[in-house]
Formats: sequence, C-alpha cells, structure tokens
Amino acid sequence: MPAGHVNHNGVTASAVAAMVPTFPPPESESEESWVWAQIKAEAHRDADSEPALASFLYATVLSHPSLARSLAFHLANKLCSSTLLSTLLYDLFLQCFSSSPSLISAVVADLLAARHRDPACATFSHCLLNYKGFLAVQAHRVSHLLWTQNRRPLALALQSRIADVFAVDIHPAARIGKGLLLDHATGVVVGETAVIGNNVSMLHHVTLGGTGKAVGDRHPKIGDGVLIGAGATILGNIRIGEGAKIGAGSVVLIDVPPRTTAVGNPARLLGGKDKPSRHNDLPGESMDHTSFIQEWSDYII
Amino acid sequence: MPAGHVNHNGVTASAVAAMVPTFPPPESESEESWVWAQIKAEAHRDADSEPALASFLYATVLSHPSLARSLAFHLANKLCSSTLLSTLLYDLFLQCFSSSPSLISAVVADLLAARHRDPACATFSHCLLNYKGFLAVQAHRVSHLLWTQNRRPLALALQSRIADVFAVDIHPAARIGKGLLLDHATGVVVGETAVIGNNVSMLHHVTLGGTGKAVGDRHPKIGDGVLIGAGATILGNIRIGEGAKIGAGSVVLIDVPPRTTAVGNPARLLGGKDKPSRHNDLPGESMDHTSFIQEWSDYII
Amino acid sequence: MPAGHVNHNGVTASAVAAMVPTFPPPESESEESWVWAQIKAEAHRDADSEPALASFLYATVLSHPSLARSLAFHLANKLCSSTLLSTLLYDLFLQCFSSSPSLISAVVADLLAARHRDPACATFSHCLLNYKGFLAVQAHRVSHLLWTQNRRPLALALQSRIADVFAVDIHPAARIGKGLLLDHATGVVVGETAVIGNNVSMLHHVTLGGTGKAVGDRHPKIGDGVLIGAGATILGNIRIGEGAKIGAGSVVLIDVPPRTTAVGNPARLLGGKDKPSRHNDLPGESMDHTSFIQEWSDYII
Amino acid sequence: MPAGHVNHNGVTASAVAAMVPTFPPPESESEESWVWAQIKAEAHRDADSEPALASFLYATVLSHPSLARSLAFHLANKLCSSTLLSTLLYDLFLQCFSSSPSLISAVVADLLAARHRDPACATFSHCLLNYKGFLAVQAHRVSHLLWTQNRRPLALALQSRIADVFAVDIHPAARIGKGLLLDHATGVVVGETAVIGNNVSMLHHVTLGGTGKAVGDRHPKIGDGVLIGAGATILGNIRIGEGAKIGAGSVVLIDVPPRTTAVGNPARLLGGKDKPSRHNDLPGESMDHTSFIQEWSDYII
Amino acid sequence: MPAGHVNHNGVTASAVAAMVPTFPPPESESEESWVWAQIKAEAHRDADSEPALASFLYATVLSHPSLARSLAFHLANKLCSSTLLSTLLYDLFLQCFSSSPSLISAVVADLLAARHRDPACATFSHCLLNYKGFLAVQAHRVSHLLWTQNRRPLALALQSRIADVFAVDIHPAARIGKGLLLDHATGVVVGETAVIGNNVSMLHHVTLGGTGKAVGDRHPKIGDGVLIGAGATILGNIRIGEGAKIGAGSVVLIDVPPRTTAVGNPARLLGGKDKPSRHNDLPGESMDHTSFIQEWSDYII
Amino acid sequence: MPAGHVNHNGVTASAVAAMVPTFPPPESESEESWVWAQIKAEAHRDADSEPALASFLYATVLSHPSLARSLAFHLANKLCSSTLLSTLLYDLFLQCFSSSPSLISAVVADLLAARHRDPACATFSHCLLNYKGFLAVQAHRVSHLLWTQNRRPLALALQSRIADVFAVDIHPAARIGKGLLLDHATGVVVGETAVIGNNVSMLHHVTLGGTGKAVGDRHPKIGDGVLIGAGATILGNIRIGEGAKIGAGSVVLIDVPPRTTAVGNPARLLGGKDKPSRHNDLPGESMDHTSFIQEWSDYII
Repeated sequence: MPAGHVNHNGVTASAVAAMVPTFPPPESESEESWVWAQIKAEAHRDADSEPALASFLYATVLSHPSLARSLAFHLANKLCSSTLLSTLLYDLFLQCFSSSPSLISAVVADLLAARHRDPACATFSHCLLNYKGFLAVQAHRVSHLLWTQNRRPLALALQSRIADVFAVDIHPAARIGKGLLLDHATGVVVGETAVIGNNVSMLHHVTLGGTGKAVGDRHPKIGDGVLIGAGATILGNIRIGEGAKIGAGSVVLIDVPPRTTAVGNPARLLGGKDKPSRHNDLPGESMDHTSFIQEWSDYII
Repeated sequence: MPAGHVNHNGVTASAVAAMVPTFPPPESESEESWVWAQIKAEAHRDADSEPALASFLYATVLSHPSLARSLAFHLANKLCSSTLLSTLLYDLFLQCFSSSPSLISAVVADLLAARHRDPACATFSHCLLNYKGFLAVQAHRVSHLLWTQNRRPLALALQSRIADVFAVDIHPAARIGKGLLLDHATGVVVGETAVIGNNVSMLHHVTLGGTGKAVGDRHPKIGDGVLIGAGATILGNIRIGEGAKIGAGSVVLIDVPPRTTAVGNPARLLGGKDKPSRHNDLPGESMDHTSFIQEWSDYII
Repeated sequence: MPAGHVNHNGVTASAVAAMVPTFPPPESESEESWVWAQIKAEAHRDADSEPALASFLYATVLSHPSLARSLAFHLANKLCSSTLLSTLLYDLFLQCFSSSPSLISAVVADLLAARHRDPACATFSHCLLNYKGFLAVQAHRVSHLLWTQNRRPLALALQSRIADVFAVDIHPAARIGKGLLLDHATGVVVGETAVIGNNVSMLHHVTLGGTGKAVGDRHPKIGDGVLIGAGATILGNIRIGEGAKIGAGSVVLIDVPPRTTAVGNPARLLGGKDKPSRHNDLPGESMDHTSFIQEWSDYII
Repeated sequence: MPAGHVNHNGVTASAVAAMVPTFPPPESESEESWVWAQIKAEAHRDADSEPALASFLYATVLSHPSLARSLAFHLANKLCSSTLLSTLLYDLFLQCFSSSPSLISAVVADLLAARHRDPACATFSHCLLNYKGFLAVQAHRVSHLLWTQNRRPLALALQSRIADVFAVDIHPAARIGKGLLLDHATGVVVGETAVIGNNVSMLHHVTLGGTGKAVGDRHPKIGDGVLIGAGATILGNIRIGEGAKIGAGSVVLIDVPPRTTAVGNPARLLGGKDKPSRHNDLPGESMDHTSFIQEWSDYII
Repeated sequence: MPAGHVNHNGVTASAVAAMVPTFPPPESESEESWVWAQIKAEAHRDADSEPALASFLYATVLSHPSLARSLAFHLANKLCSSTLLSTLLYDLFLQCFSSSPSLISAVVADLLAARHRDPACATFSHCLLNYKGFLAVQAHRVSHLLWTQNRRPLALALQSRIADVFAVDIHPAARIGKGLLLDHATGVVVGETAVIGNNVSMLHHVTLGGTGKAVGDRHPKIGDGVLIGAGATILGNIRIGEGAKIGAGSVVLIDVPPRTTAVGNPARLLGGKDKPSRHNDLPGESMDHTSFIQEWSDYII
Repeated sequence: MPAGHVNHNGVTASAVAAMVPTFPPPESESEESWVWAQIKAEAHRDADSEPALASFLYATVLSHPSLARSLAFHLANKLCSSTLLSTLLYDLFLQCFSSSPSLISAVVADLLAARHRDPACATFSHCLLNYKGFLAVQAHRVSHLLWTQNRRPLALALQSRIADVFAVDIHPAARIGKGLLLDHATGVVVGETAVIGNNVSMLHHVTLGGTGKAVGDRHPKIGDGVLIGAGATILGNIRIGEGAKIGAGSVVLIDVPPRTTAVGNPARLLGGKDKPSRHNDLPGESMDHTSFIQEWSDYII
C-alpha cells in the first residue's frame, strides 16, 4: 500500500472497489446517470486507495453534481491560459452543455465507445480524466456549437487552445458523430469540411485533409463505423464508406467502398480495386468480429 | 492621450467592422502598417461581437501600439513556464524584434502567406493569434537570432519551450526563409543544418531530418516555393529544387529536381526519375495554378 | 554552510568554464557523480555567460544537491497543472527516485546515450533540461514504478500529463530498458504490453502499437540496440531482433530478425525476406559503424 | 446573438460615455438593474479610453450578463489560490448568489453606500472592482451564508482567504446589515458574535473584538447608522447605539448611547457621561448633516 | 446538506465526527502524534461532509504522512510567488523541519495554544489551515533558523513573503518562544532584537518596535505568559515582565513589572506606578483565571 | 556579448563579494549608477553564497541592465494577478520609468533613505527586493503619474493592486516627495488630497485621512523631514510643519508647528501648546541628532 495511505471508517479499499457496479448498466436506468454513477464510484475507490490523487479526484469529479459540470471543470482547467481564464472557459462550457443536451449524450456515447473498444480503458473515469482524444473531441463539440451559432472568433480561439494543449487540431466547422474513439490522438488533424459518422475509431496522427488551395467542400467524408489506423492520411473530398477500414500509415486519395479495407501508400483496396474484399460488420463500432482479422488487423494499432 | 491608445474618432463599432479593408493593400502603404491596421480592425470587430473574447483580444492585440509588441506579448504568454517567466520572455522578444527589423518583415510575409494560401485563414488576426505553426516559426526566428549571436543555451531553451508548447521542433541553427506557411504544424521536426527557402509551404508531421550519427551538414535543403505534404519525411543532406512538390506521407532520400513532384515510400519522381514531369510555377508560393493538379494534388493536404 | 551550497572555492568563472571535463569520465569516478559534475559545470558556465537564463539554471540545476533532486524539480514544474500541483509531483518524484536507485542509473544511461548518439547534443545539461523525449521517458519510468506497485490510477494520471505536455504517450505498463534515446519524441506512442530493450534509439512519431481489440500481450517487443526511424509504425506482438534497423516511415507487421533492416509500407526486409542482409553491430547503441550505411542510413533521421 | 452579448445598438463609443446616467436612478427602474447598467456604461467608457485596462474590464465586467456573475467572477479570481481553484470558488459564489437574492440586494446597497458617502468614490465600477473593503464584505456574506447552512469548514476556509488577500478578518458567524461602507478596510477584525446594523460606516483598522477567553456572546453590537473612525477598538458584548459616532483611535469598553459620540483611549462620551451630547441624524448613513461637525468630525477619517 | 454531497461506505458523516478524539490526549501518546491524528480525523470528517473542500483537504493534509510535511506543503503554496517557486520553498521547509525537530514541537505547542486560548478555534485543523498568525509564526521560525545559520539573504526574502502574504512582519533575528498565540495577526510588527517568551498571546496590530535610529539591542523583551491586546504599541528595549497584561491600544514606553497590567496612551500601570496591582497567574498562558477580570479584561480582545 | 550581460572579467566570486563598495559613494559617480552597482554587487555575493536564492536574484536583479528595468520587473511580478498580467504591468512600468526620469531619481532617494535611517537595512538590495513600503511607494509614484495624465481608471486599478498586495493604500492623487522611508508599511492609508514633503519617515499603520464626507482639499499636509510614529492617525486638512515629530499611536487633529513634537490621543504638543519644545534638526531626514531624545524617542518605533 502506498505511503501516506489513510484507512478510515474501517471499510477496506477492496470493499469499496467491490461496489463499483459491473458493466453494462441495468435497463432501468438512463445511460448518462449510470455512467456518472460509475465514474463517481471509481473516483471514490481511487481517492481512498491513493491519497496523492484524492485532491485531483475531488476537485475534478467528486465535488460536482453532474457529469456535465465535472467535464466543464476539467476542460476549463486543461484549456485555460494566462490570457483565456479558466473561469471564462468554465462558464462557456457550462452554458453550452446546459443549452445543448446532445453534447452530453455524445459525451456518454464517447465514454462507452472507449470502454467498449479500447482494451487499455479499464474504467470510465480513466477516459474522462486522462484521454486527450476524448477531451479534445468534447471541446471540439463545443467549438462546433459556437461555429454554428456564428460565434466564429471564439470557436477558432478554442480550436487553437485544443491544438496547443492536446496536439489535436479539428476545425470548428467539422461535423463529428457520436461514439467516436480518438485513441492516443496526438497529431490528429481534421479539416473544415470533413464529416465523421457515428461510431468511428481513429488512432493518432490521422489526417483528414484537403487538397491544396481549393476552397469549398474539400475534405473527406467518413462513414459510420469506420476504423482508421495510426498515421493514416486521407485527403480530398472523398468518401470512406461505412464499416471501411484504413490501414495504419496509409495515404488514401480515392473513395473506399463500404466494408472495404484500404492499405498502403498510395492506398489500394484489399482484394483489388474491382472486387474489394467485403466484410459485414462495422469495425469502428463493434470491433469484436475477428473473422477477417488476418486480412487487416496488422494495419490498425 | 495615453500611449497605446486606440483612437475611435467617433466611429461606431459597426462602422469599424465595415472598415476592415479588403485584400490586397493599397500601394501607398507599407505592408507592415497595412497588415497591422487590418489586424486591429478585425480584433475590434470581434471584440465588439463577442464579449467573451474581448478580454483576450484587448490584452493580446488592441492594447499594443505595434505588431511587434503584440506578437512579443502573445509569444511570451504562450511560451512562458513556471521557471521561464513571461516577463523575461517578453523582454527577450521585444529586444530581438527591435534590434532586428527583418524579423518583423518575416512576420508580415508569413501572415500574408497564410492568408494567400490557406483557404481556412479568413483573417490575419486568426493566423496571428491561433496558428501554432505561425507562432512556432516566429519564436524560432528569435531562437535562430540568438544562435547566430552565440547565445546558444538560451536559443536551445527557447527551442525546448516551442517543442513543448506547439509540438514543433526546429533546431535554432536551421535557416528559414520568408513567407513560410506551416499549416497545422503539430509534429514538424527540422534539423540543425536544414535550410528552407522563401515561400515554402509545409504541412504537419513533416520531418527534415538527418541520417544517423553523421556530424556536420546532414539535413535537407528546401528550395524556394516548395510544397511539402503532411507527414512527409525528408532525410539527409539532399536538395529539394525550387517549386518541387513532395506528396503527403512520402519518404524522400534523394534529390528532387526543381518543379518536380515526388511521392511514395520511398519517394519516386512522377514521370520517372529520368524524365521528371516538370511544371512552371512555384506551388509553395502561388498555389493558384491548377493545370497539373491531376498529377499531384491528392498528395498534399 | 547551507545544504545544497555550491562551493566556488575561489575559482573564477572562466576557470569554471575551462574545467568542464572532457568526455568520457575518468575510471576512478562513478558515472552518476561524474555526469552530475559535468551538468553543474555546464550550467555554471551558461549562467555566467547568459544572465537571462541564469534564473532558470539556478532554480533547476544549480540549487540542487543531486541529479535526482534536480530532475525531480524539473519534471514537477514541467508536468504540474492547476489540479496536480508541482509540490505534489515533486514529492512523488523524490520518493520514487530515492526508493528506486535504478531509476537514476537509467537517467544516467539515457543522458550518456543522448550525448553519444545525437550529434546535436553537445552537453548533458542540454539533454536534461530541454529534451522532451528524455524527460518523458524519465517520467514514464516513475509511472511504471507506480504501476508495478499497484498504484494504477496515479500511474495513469501521470501518463496523461506526459502525453499532454510532451506529446509522448507511453502506457505505464510498458517496460523500457536503459540507454534509450527518444529523439525529438513528439507523437511517440508505446502500448501497454510493449517491451523495449537496452540501448534502443527511436525517433519521433514512432508507434509501438497493438492490433485492434485484442486483449493481453499485443504490442511489439524491441530488442537491444534497435534503431527505429521517424514515423515508423510497428504493430502487434511481433519481435524486432537485437540490432535491427527500421526505416523511417515504415509500417512493420512482421518479425524482424536480429541485425536486419526493414523498410517500406508494408515493410520488407532488405536483402529479401529469406536472406536478410545481416550486419554485426548494434546500431541503436553504438551508431558508429558505417560499413553498411549505403543500405539503410537514409531511412533513419 | 451569443449569451452575454453587450448590444451597442449602433451607438458610438463616445455616445456611450455620454450616456453614463447621472445619479440618482429614475424611479421607474429597479435599483439593481440601474446600478448594473451604470457599471457597464462606466466600464465601456473606461475600456474605450484606456486600452491597457480594457482586457481587465471585459473579463471582469463587460463579458458578464449580470452583476452577480461579474462579482462572482471577480471574487473568484481575487480569492483563489493554488489549492483553492478559481473555478471552484466561482461555482460557489454563483450558487450562493442565485440561491440567496438578498446577497445581491446587499451588494447594491453597499455600492450605493460607497457612492453616497465616500467622496473618493466617483463611480460604481471603481467600488466594485477596486475596493477591498467592499469585496471583503461581499465574500463575507457568502461565508456567513455557508455558516448558517452548517457548512462551517468551507466558511472558515473562505474567511481565511479573505483575511490573506484583503487583510480583513470577519468571522463567518458575524451578522452584518446592508449598506455597509468599509473604507480602506485593511486590518479590520470582526469577531464571531458581533452584529453590525444597517448603513454603518467603518474605517480601516477597526476591531470589534471579544474579551479574553470568554465563550458565548462576547462581541460588540453596532446599531444602525453608526460611524466608526480609523483604528477604533471596540471590545466586549457592549452596545453602540444607533447613529453613534466613535472617534478614530478610540478604545471603547462601555455602551455608547444612540446618537452619541465617543472618543479617546479609554473612550469617554462627548458632553460627559451623564449628559451625552445628542444629535438627530444617522451619521453612518446620511453623513450629510454637518451641524455638529465641530464636535466630532476630526475623529473620523 | 450541501449540494454535491456523496455519502459512501454507508458510514454517516456524524459517525465519522464521533470518532474525532476528544481533548486532551491520552497520556500514553506523544503530543505531536496525537495532534496529527486529530488533524487527520478532522480533515477526513470535513472532506466527507463538504466535497467542495475535499480537494483542498486532501492536497494539504490527508495526502501527507506527517504534520511536518503537511505544514511544509501548506506554507510553500501560501508563500510562493512567480519568482520564488513553491517547489523551492517546499524543499526549504522540509529540510528545516527535518533538521530541527524543535520547530515541529513549537508547531504543536502553538496549535495547542490556539485550541486552549481562542474560543473561536474549535479544531486543530482550523488553526493549521486558516490562521494567518499561526502560519506566519511557523514560517518565521524557519526564517529565524536560516538567520542563525548565517543564511541571511534567504531569511530576509522569506520575511518579505510573510509580510506580503500574511501582513505579519517579524524580523528573522527576533527570538520567539513556544506556545505563541498570534490571534488575527494582521499588522503585527516585531523588530530585530525583540524577544518573546513562552506562552505569550498577542492580538493583531501589535508592534514590538525600536526607537529611531538606535543600533543594537533596541526592541522589547516580552516575558512568559504575557498577554498583549489589539493595537498595542510597545517601543524600545524595555521589559514586559512575565504574566503582565497590556491593554488594547496602549502605547508602552516603560518597563512593566511581572503580573501587572498596563493600559492607555501613554500606558500607565493599573494600581499606580508605585504599587502595581499584582495578580498571580500567567494570563497569556492559562487565561482561565477571572478573579481580576473587572480590572483589565475589556482591554484585550 | 548579449545585452544585459554581467561581465565578471575573471574576478572570483569572493573577490566580487569583497568589492561591495562601502557607503557613501565616491563623488565622481552619479548616485543612480553607484546605487545600481552596489545592488548588483550585493546580489552577486548573495547568489554565490545562497544557491536557493540565486534564481530569484538573477531573475529580479542580475539579468537586468538597469535599476529601472529591475524594479519594473519586480513590481510587475509582485502586483500582477490573473486578470492583470505581469507582462502588461511590466510594459506600463517600463514606459513610465523611461518617460519620467524623476521616478527613478525618487527610487534612488528612497533607497538611500532606507539605508541611512533604518538600522535593519544593511544593503540596498534588501530594500529593493523585500521592503513592501518601498515597493508600494514606487508603484504609487507610477499610479500618481497616470493620475496626472488623466488615466484615472488605470491609476485606481493600480492603487487597488498595491492595497491588496502590500496592504498599503495611497490614493493616486496624493503627492509624495523624495526620500520617503515607509518602514514596515502594513496598513498605511494616505488620502486623495494629502501631500507629503521630502525626506519624511513614516512607520506602519499611519493614516493621513480626511474628515467625513467633506469634498475637496481635506487631507493632511506633511512638511519636509517629518517623522511619524507607528499607528499615528492624522486627520483633516491640517499642516504638520517641517521637522515635526508625531508620536506612535497619536491622533492628531490640529496643526503641528515645525520642529515640534506631538503625542497622545488626542495629540498634544510637547512643552505645551503655547510654547512648544522646538528642536533644530529634521528628524525624518537626518535622524542622527539625539539631544532631545529623552523627550520623544519612545514614541517612534
């Protein structure tokens, strides 16, 4: 047990741990309240077992009455700077979260996505507190809301802070679905007219970029359930069909049909361009079908 | 009237917004004063329309009498740390900018480059305030000046702060021309003996690296007007001729002749090594010729 | 005399500068105390020649009685945030360094590695103070220690801070040998079950990743003396044999035999898969053999 | 239009300045909204004339939709520390202000008191932004609310921050009326069982103290409209009657009848103890009657 | 119960409160460990009942293994500035506390003094965390230690921070006994050659000053158990005998015999100079004798 | 050689310490450059002997090329807040110091005053770095300059910061001569129409206040060379003649003739009102005449 541990109330840490409810939630409860209850139980358990972290956990999670306030607090303290105060950002996040409940349902969907798909994500609180991809995406959703409200200078300033702090650069105009897993996330760039569907998984260093000086609709459209490996570069107003997989390190300049795998630089479709090898699941979403893994698994990380 | 005062002259806020001058500047004015006037007009307009951002805009732009002081203030607050105080950095930037006017003319050239070449850059103030690539390059120019003055420990400490804050790692000894656009910028690495010409455009994740343990002149030389796509890796003391284009994700180990396109891993010259496909513009500079776009545009972002 | 006092003994500043000992150390002294003496001599020389940096050098190096305390101080001030205070982190690093002396011997080995292998690393203090790769690795070693002590929430919180501040994302469970050079380092990702041997050199943007949703042992094993070029992506529970070289930008999905070079996307072994071209040195360690440089040197940076 | 937006309505900056309404408010408007409109007009005028202060004024006043939010923001940034974050305090102040509207009506009364009674207080915004006495009292009102809600540890922590930052030490249990002017304020100490009526004026260094180790009701009770000069020390459970005046530097250990002046160390009643010199106004409230000024005015500051 | 309260483990907050041990300690335990156990129990109870304060309590108390480390952490975060880092101060306090155990026994004596003598001090943790007088005195003890070690510049810099942060200005050379209660504390000034005995109680605004330009031993000597009321000014190398009492607001320029009361400006001895009214207790220490209270009690606060 | 460089010229540290010149300066040098040379020599000596303070000394003194820049840096870091950035204040102080050289000659006079008159002030650097009275007065001089330039909102904001940080509250309109010693300083209040002559010495808790609601010229006028003891309260538009002395704790409501001593509450003139005891020196200035010390010395501190 770490130095400084304080065992009080006679309740053992393992007993507390035992109370963390098991996954998935009972049907009788809303997903948001269930996830928030999980997060608080995890944070309590961790604060009890690790006093050195308790201050952080109380400030960021346990002193807050809702997931929205906890996240607003955490993002405000992460993204603030000497010229953009935490209190200002906190206000901004609180207002956006309370005026747009869909932002919080997206938060919940992204938390579930990380827990489902990332084997290194053992708890919801780990994702909420520590995943720079998760945090960057939630902050992007706020900057996107501001963009749609024609508050563009503020949206761009927020993008800039996200890019500095998390090294994730998503244009405020980009539209992103729910259930996104942005794993590791460092170096991700998503351009102004990019669209990302639901239940997509993207690794770090992924670029959804444009082509030179073209103005207008010039960035990729990513379908539902797509899986994009580390370092993949997808350029231009092309379409990656639902359930497609893009191998790590690929450079993709052409449309990829649904449920098809593209790999290489420049990327080619597995099975040949004319007769792509189709599969029937949504790899970005379920990720639990393994029948085709021989074909593509080495290309994702 | 206090120093630094901005004279409204009885002009209404909406009139100020209307006055944001259109591009390009009239011939009768210096580029620097014209760009600075633009930036202030933009910032006034944005402060009026978005009170939540007004504090930031006044602190960073509107309270300053010149572009040099505004940028010095902004960089100092971005790059400071608990052991390298903002006041110290502010002093340093002010001294360098005032002793080396060419630093500010490079600032202006880089602002114009972003505005010309990046379709997502709608205003000068957006670039000045929010582009980590732009800010990293200006801070590099200062660290390079210090390097040439034999103040190497300070130059290296500044490089380290730039690498931490912007995830852009440019050796202080590297020589960089004017009119550089470093778009998105995260992950860019430029080695000690690299040279970059004028009017170059580089995307994120670009590496201008060396080859192993060799000492001495071991990094690439990038000609004027070169365009380097996202994630390109250019290694060794090789020459990328003026107006050449390097495709996204390429790994370049050989010289690339002027006005030639190189793509792939390892990169090959389009049109074959012996008879490269030449074009006659400078893609990094003008970026507005599209006759050859079929050939290469998908490789840049 | 106060603790931590640095005794000049009537030696002039220029004499101190002259005393910066040449490399390598005399046999009669322990490597740690010799390196620490070097660092202090370098910092004294730099503080004398550059007053603008003296405050930083005194705070971070010259006021400390040992390398461990200097590094703990530096890391605490780099990694702290508004919710994870520098004093808390300082305490944590001090405790770990004093309870696990092997952490400090690894620090020394990594300092020597940078000095030996990186031609841009002219002094130990430059590496200690400015190399984000070096600092990220030392902080990782502490998070790994916490992980092995079953203090996982704290280990993960530390990983998160390292990923935010240095853009280096190493899972606390990953095991890393001594003498690692992580050059430039931005964007490096190392997964949970990865293992890195001794005397490895890795450039920036390198990924040691897993393959999708697989649980358990799913990340690469990197042998001693391996050299991995910039942007290389190595995926899955594969083995990179000792002394192997991985070219920049490669995507490696298969085992690489010892002393073999792999390049390309997907990577192929130089000399053909059946008859790989072997060499007899450890490129990540010594890096001073050049007989085979024609084959591979352009692929590293 | 974004929340918190300040609508200029096409009115020029100089016109805004001209519009700063004269005192007192028209009868048709609530005092709070009138005072808040004044404060915003003053802040606009000052931001326009002094760019160096504009950032502060926008952050603290002009970006907020209400007096309550502006004050919560300002107090949070004044009272925060490295272990008591501004975001936490901001939340706390916002919650208290919104759940207890009487706090804000007291704020308004105190602002009017300063404007009425202090010849150096030319604007409401000067008091709101710069008067440490005003700010300390508003923060005390919040700590008092917490005390009455049995949140005593938090109330005491807040008292401690007020005492550190403003050098004003008011026990959370002390009850304070509306319309208090605490001028200069440094060094004021108010004990646990003290009670202060409405429309009281107190200068700096005033002590409302207890007597030794006595427990229970042991501090002074100050009636409405009392005026207490600089450095006066009032000790024990005694009663200072309404409209009484206490001379600067007095040490008061006995009851003071209403509308009576006490001066000296130990204090004696002017006109003799048996036949005190009565006056008929409330000096702490109106302060505009001067018929008796010869008697006492030199004792206040 | 406050919003955001989290009741876990099924243990009620009042049950935790019940476990806070009652005063005084059992004989079998050292005072330090008993006081520290009390403080931790109080902090646990408060963290459980007030989540908004839990972060502060864990960071400052509950994550630390000893009273010395908790106090060092708290003082470092209180006294740090942008040019005197918290980590540096933390180091300094830790070193002094561990090398001079008498500092900690003085801490314990001062905590007991506050709890015994101040009716507003209901818990030890309240004093440790919130009493600026207590904190200023502990920091002074460290600056005094540095002074005796001939580390005068550091001692004076620490004095300066104490004077800024707590408005308590004690010269590092002043010698102060154990069991000091410095209540409220704002404005206290203690000169270079002043000496304060054991078990003294002093209120705010007390001055132990010199007389003009005299050099050498020129400040008061305060005997054991003396009680000094608010605002008292004691000047010159005079002796205040043990158990004497100085009334609030007094100006004392002459020796005061033991167990004698002095009041007024200039102070006179109660009972006449020739036949002072003696009492037989130590008022600053025990404060529980009340037989003579009619005489003097109104003069203290 | 870099700007701001301090040339050791091969002189050893102990030799530097030995070179700290003795007081007073040689006639051949300007007072400012002599004092600045002293301060730098002192700081060098202290940095060499106390590494824990060296960082502070280099940042605040040794990295600056002039007294003005050192003081601007120090004040900016002392007075900054989260909403009033250090860089902004640094700019402001630098501009005022460079546009009004008389500010710096007043700084020098005040430094000399502290060194001459305060026996606890052994070095100039101690005063420059640590005396809150000295620092508050220099910041006041800047706020006074702003006031005279009709930049009143900024002047008042600065006054507020001085009052928070140093607990010294001087209205920006108050006029203060040169050679002021404000010893200890906590709690000093100086009103809007007060005037303080040259070579005045004031202790802490001194009030130069007004009388109630009167508008216009309502505060004291303090002549040259006056000495005001701790806690003295001087109220109303009265005149304290040159060389007068005001005893500690006095409450002064009447004119005090030159070279006269006033003591008590209310203050009476020593020697009787009709025939005041005159003396022939300026006690606030020279403080070295002791012929009359029996009369008054106990009243000052």
